[in-house]
Amino acid sequence: MRATVFYAPGDVRIENVPDPRIQQPTDVLARVTHACICGSDLWFYRGLTDFKPGWRTGHEWMGVVEEVGPEVRTIRKGDRVIAPFVTSDGTCEFCREGLYTSCVNVGFWGMENDGGQGEMVRCPFADGTLVALPPDVPNDDALLKSILPLTDVMGTGHHAAVSAGVRPGAVVAVVGDGAVGLCGVLAARRLGAGRIIVLGHQEARMDLARRFGATDIIAGRGEEAIGRVIEMTKGGADSVLECVGTSTSFNTALGICRPGRTVGFVGVPHWGEPLNARRLFFQNIRVHGGVAPVRAYIPELLKDVLAGRLDPSPVLDMTVNLDGVPDGYKAMDTRKAIKVMVRM
Amino acid sequence: MRATVFYAPGDVRIENVPDPRIQQPTDVLARVTHACICGSDLWFYRGLTDFKPGWRTGHEWMGVVEEVGPEVRTIRKGDRVIAPFVTSDGTCEFCREGLYTSCVNVGFWGMENDGGQGEMVRCPFADGTLVALPPDVPNDDALLKSILPLTDVMGTGHHAAVSAGVRPGAVVAVVGDGAVGLCGVLAARRLGAGRIIVLGHQEARMDLARRFGATDIIAGRGEEAIGRVIEMTKGGADSVLECVGTSTSFNTALGICRPGRTVGFVGVPHWGEPLNARRLFFQNIRVHGGVAPVRAYIPELLKDVLAGRLDPSPVLDMTVNLDGVPDGYKAMDTRKAIKVMVRM
Repeated sequence: MRATVFYAPGDVRIENVPDPRIQQPTDVLARVTHACICGSDLWFYRGLTDFKPGWRTGHEWMGVVEEVGPEVRTIRKGDRVIAPFVTSDGTCEFCREGLYTSCVNVGFWGMENDGGQGEMVRCPFADGTLVALPPDVPNDDALLKSILPLTDVMGTGHHAAVSAGVRPGAVVAVVGDGAVGLCGVLAARRLGAGRIIVLGHQEARMDLARRFGATDIIAGRGEEAIGRVIEMTKGGADSVLECVGTSTSFNTALGICRPGRTVGFVGVPHWGEPLNARRLFFQNIRVHGGVAPVRAYIPELLKDVLAGRLDPSPVLDMTVNLDGVPDGYKAMDTRKAIKVMVRM
Repeated sequence: MRATVFYAPGDVRIENVPDPRIQQPTDVLARVTHACICGSDLWFYRGLTDFKPGWRTGHEWMGVVEEVGPEVRTIRKGDRVIAPFVTSDGTCEFCREGLYTSCVNVGFWGMENDGGQGEMVRCPFADGTLVALPPDVPNDDALLKSILPLTDVMGTGHHAAVSAGVRPGAVVAVVGDGAVGLCGVLAARRLGAGRIIVLGHQEARMDLARRFGATDIIAGRGEEAIGRVIEMTKGGADSVLECVGTSTSFNTALGICRPGRTVGFVGVPHWGEPLNARRLFFQNIRVHGGVAPVRAYIPELLKDVLAGRLDPSPVLDMTVNLDGVPDGYKAMDTRKAIKVMVRM
């Protein structure tokens, strides 16, 4: 089969790789129909994290099940499935609590495993990992595009909002204008936020933020932005969604959070500078969040997407086929695209 | 009057200073009967934080009210009062929520104000700051010594336990064997913890931890201690109380916290090294806490002390009079005393 392979920073290629096969009785094989390129893929694409030449890529995908291991109980051949961005056994104490990302058998797509940016995938622990679409869901391109972000960015934005304790009527601030930040806006609105302030700097993204429910836009980060949010909220937001992962964005989140309230952080930490421990400590700001257990959120978010109440598909503002994946990386690297859909 | 004055690191002296007088109609003047030296006083005593020569010291005190400003409504001349370690107006939105340390008119003892380590104190916002003892409380030395830690360390240990979400039956770990850590043990037991693991390294303190309810003692911090706690708890403690404030202790707290559970941190952050952001993020560990709003906790803790159900007084293992304050600092600096009571 063909799949995306990492060669070096700035260099991913589509190559022939071995076809996957069932290895464990709890595996399934699926043909990928849709995948994404993720903002977090840019970390290795830019050479900022260790990633070995030859490793495979892509952790967001949907597909159709083609072969099922003998111990798989709930997933069937022919099912259209949504894959969360990690695999999980579904039975350990953390999975039972909904914290699938801390599964004692947690696994990752890509690297030495099959990745979503390829034709086929072997999925371990299929029962604990995949969510099958109800059979009556129409095979509609627009609808499937609305479901695709549930594999990662919509679940992650929702995790930020849930972690930040967004309640009806709350004053919410979102740090970051990437796909996750934009999904955080959608999630905050869905949870009933009364006011949603977005800190970002690219005009097209801010337009989308407004469409998604943002009530106020603040350009940039840092001290000036902090001062403006503190002033407009008379002391800080009730819930802050940190959707970037740098120390600057995290400190901005701390700076605009109301004393005693919560920062929900989902940006993978790449903290080059010290955190503002003084504000964290002296204002009793709570920090919740981390990697999003999106598997736990897919059922409730899917219900809203299928009912037409939730549509994160506008974050997917560029579509490529498998051969176009390298161009997709380039477009995201240069911020020409918010997020790229790979339509096989 | 006479009071403790800071000269230089390692050098505090008892000197004559101006008598306090009522300055605002919401002030009271109180004669200090009991005070403490705090572990956090050692930061300036050791020259680790900015503290100016001539500044006054002491933020934990009890006393008797001698003069009352014309707008004070609830505190009366002759009342025996407990002072939390910050002053607060009692009426702003944060005070009304119980987050007195974020009061918009928050104030501090010592520095350019009167400190507890002196004969008299002017207390601003007396109604919002002080708690009067019920008039029927006997003037009993042992009882008053049990109440004194409510000014800071007992309330702070309680804040660590509340912030860490200690519930009946929970597996709790306490990082730190200072007065706050020991009070954290008491607080965790009071909240019904099923198991209390203490990480510390001084034998006498560990004996006291056992008396206070510790079920397991782990010597030291760092990777080896983390490994032992992870093993004995099969994956980490439900609630971790971080009662030191260094990056080592904070990272130990993160390392022994069960995925998805909470670190309650009350150690004033002096983070020299980076935090273990990977564990925080990938295990969805929650961080709550900060400076303790002890004013909010005094009523409920006082009730238990008066009923004989709570007695933190053993953390006060050395007593001096005002002239003995410099010796008290020395004893705490060399860890000869856990915590020093100043009996005027």
